[in-house]
Amino acid sequence: MSEAFDAVDVIRAKRDQQVLTDAQIDWVIDAYTRGVVAEEQMAALNMAILLNGMTRPEIARWTAAMIASGERMDFSTLARPTADKHSTGGVGDKITLPLAPLVAVFGVAVPQLSGRGLGHTGGTLDKLESIPGWRAALTNAEMLAQLDDVGAVICQAGSGLAPADRKLYALRDVTGTVESIPLIASSIMSKKIAEGTGALVLDVKVGSGAFMKSLEDARELARTMVDLGTDAGVRTSALLTDMSTPLGLTAGNALEVRESVEVLAGGGPADVVDLTVALAREMLDAAGRPDADPAAALADGRAMDVWRAMIAAQGGDPDAPLPTAKHTEQVLAPADGVLVALDALAVGIAAWRLGAGRARREDTVQAGAGIELHAKPGAPVRAGQVLMTLHTDTPDRFDRAAEALTDAVTIAPAGSRPATGAVVLERVDAA
Amino acid sequence: MSEAFDAVDVIRAKRDQQVLTDAQIDWVIDAYTRGVVAEEQMAALNMAILLNGMTRPEIARWTAAMIASGERMDFSTLARPTADKHSTGGVGDKITLPLAPLVAVFGVAVPQLSGRGLGHTGGTLDKLESIPGWRAALTNAEMLAQLDDVGAVICQAGSGLAPADRKLYALRDVTGTVESIPLIASSIMSKKIAEGTGALVLDVKVGSGAFMKSLEDARELARTMVDLGTDAGVRTSALLTDMSTPLGLTAGNALEVRESVEVLAGGGPADVVDLTVALAREMLDAAGRPDADPAAALADGRAMDVWRAMIAAQGGDPDAPLPTAKHTEQVLAPADGVLVALDALAVGIAAWRLGAGRARREDTVQAGAGIELHAKPGAPVRAGQVLMTLHTDTPDRFDRAAEALTDAVTIAPAGSRPATGAVVLERVDAA
Repeated sequence: MSEAFDAVDVIRAKRDQQVLTDAQIDWVIDAYTRGVVAEEQMAALNMAILLNGMTRPEIARWTAAMIASGERMDFSTLARPTADKHSTGGVGDKITLPLAPLVAVFGVAVPQLSGRGLGHTGGTLDKLESIPGWRAALTNAEMLAQLDDVGAVICQAGSGLAPADRKLYALRDVTGTVESIPLIASSIMSKKIAEGTGALVLDVKVGSGAFMKSLEDARELARTMVDLGTDAGVRTSALLTDMSTPLGLTAGNALEVRESVEVLAGGGPADVVDLTVALAREMLDAAGRPDADPAAALADGRAMDVWRAMIAAQGGDPDAPLPTAKHTEQVLAPADGVLVALDALAVGIAAWRLGAGRARREDTVQAGAGIELHAKPGAPVRAGQVLMTLHTDTPDRFDRAAEALTDAVTIAPAGSRPATGAVVLERVDAA
Repeated sequence: MSEAFDAVDVIRAKRDQQVLTDAQIDWVIDAYTRGVVAEEQMAALNMAILLNGMTRPEIARWTAAMIASGERMDFSTLARPTADKHSTGGVGDKITLPLAPLVAVFGVAVPQLSGRGLGHTGGTLDKLESIPGWRAALTNAEMLAQLDDVGAVICQAGSGLAPADRKLYALRDVTGTVESIPLIASSIMSKKIAEGTGALVLDVKVGSGAFMKSLEDARELARTMVDLGTDAGVRTSALLTDMSTPLGLTAGNALEVRESVEVLAGGGPADVVDLTVALAREMLDAAGRPDADPAAALADGRAMDVWRAMIAAQGGDPDAPLPTAKHTEQVLAPADGVLVALDALAVGIAAWRLGAGRARREDTVQAGAGIELHAKPGAPVRAGQVLMTLHTDTPDRFDRAAEALTDAVTIAPAGSRPATGAVVLERVDAA
């Protein structure tokens, strides 16, 4: 079969700062999926895109071409509206767990396709897999039935959704081309649009533990994704949220499930509750439920009921004890004063090294490994007080975890205040 | 074996405009040669180098690392000094053929490792292979013996010389990363320095038929290569020469051999003679023969004697008739006036399409195919006069060749002058 373009011409065009045509973009994504454009050619093109950028129409077309590379899901047979959430990834970010059942309380279906963790940020599926019996893989029919019945599902994305993105993401990971706003935005949005949700809220993390280290970059990413969703007919908004310090008091799979259950029981750390409620409001507004009161549904146990049904529907036992790690070690405060900073990236790396995360896709994770925090920024502390408990099944990991935490904690004289405050920093909606 | 670096960190460093360290460069070239750095990783790094550049020390180290990837030749056992020439490639550029024997006349050994053509520029080995019996592949021992005996050798570079460059060049060719001055300069110079020549002259082509379309780019490439050679102890200079129009009156393998023999017989087109003599003077000066008179050695047959010995030493019959194409077609002047431009790129592409060049490395070439020019820029022409003769064994190629020539010819009113004049534009030597 004769090809419409030569890959080298497309690479050269972007290299020389030209705007790619729709036909070039459609061809390059399709030919890459078919294996006609080689990995090394796509790597060169990705680096040229990272360094020279893409226009808004180019990003939209790139996204559409990735959607067209696979199947699209269809929730139009459901009696309820649909809403989904995507987080760009952070440390201790277990929000999906309480959020999906909470939104479902109000008759909105939440089809939450999730992933596994890689590097210092955890994966939602890894967390839920610490619940005995729970399974991540559902057929499309099972997913639809569960949405109809329970209203919420958190499961693994099938390989049929945006296969070009799957292939491209693996390539970007090994070629230093992850950190490109057009490529990040199109990767996320191609999957979310193909998934067929009616409404979408994006949780764009900012700070040391996030991809986006600056508010400016986070704003640009949020704006790019909201525009892509809006142009594709999905009611999309974004919250920029703080990731300078971990969310809540836990980072690690079973530890985070335990904390999520506390939130569903009406308790839990204030930042996790605040963010869960803020994201639920966004989703409920976009799905046509502006009068819903998500905070009340956490307090009165309705969200917990949906959680239990959701876990049970996927084979999990919501009453089973969660796995715990075989070994623990404590990190003590080095001085008296106020804890003004507790670095998200350092905690994320330490939890990863304890066994909570994976360095390669084929690695397994330890369900019980991770870190419990006993103080959050703003708390007064005394020298020798326990600041963190490290958990692992493999105690030879403690040293390297402690190493990652060397500069994680900043204690300032009494009366000092932490740099960060509220978890939600800004909101971005359709322009 | 544990690796000193992670390829992604090296890619990111160059992507983020950092200067690569010596250790990073040594590692990435070595690991790429060993297959530890994958093709897609090197492609991303090459694109980052193309877009973000390299400093002079980075280019020198990159070149040294490519040399270190393979063997180095050693001509120190020869009684004579050595000098070599490299051309960046042009249309009708047969200069190596008369030049190597001409320089050898004066007791300077010329070890000319050459390549095959790809795309619109011809390859020296392809040209010589149109001589019945001539063979391009010599062992190192055969090459040394011929240099000792005849004084000049034109042969295929062995695969042991800078293997990293061989692998890298094939990658750059398919990833749109050829057009980078640091990568071009290090590719050329790694082979030339590894070859072990004492003196080197670079023929850097400028114009439509060359890699370098502008004088500024050509100057930068020449300066970069002269610095690399000088720093490595090779007496190096460069001539910037015109490639807006083909060199001489022929483009095509056997056609160019015929013209080269005319030059060696004391005749031939003025531009070919001028450039051959200018490059010979550079090589002879650098090799310690400033009083040599190359023009005289063309006129009196001494260069022809060395040519015949050189061809015969590699199994060729210098008296055998050269192959001719089975079919010819003429291109006529469309108007009266002065031929003010005859585009090198268009002629190169047309000759290639006639069968003189190859689109893929594995293609074969037609010995007799190509183009004869009957007028050069500056010549007065009359409508209907024959401007070019096209040669091919496969007459279905005429149409696509003629298509490439559509805008090749510019005829202006009588009294007009062509934009180009002398073939040698500038000289660059050690700073």
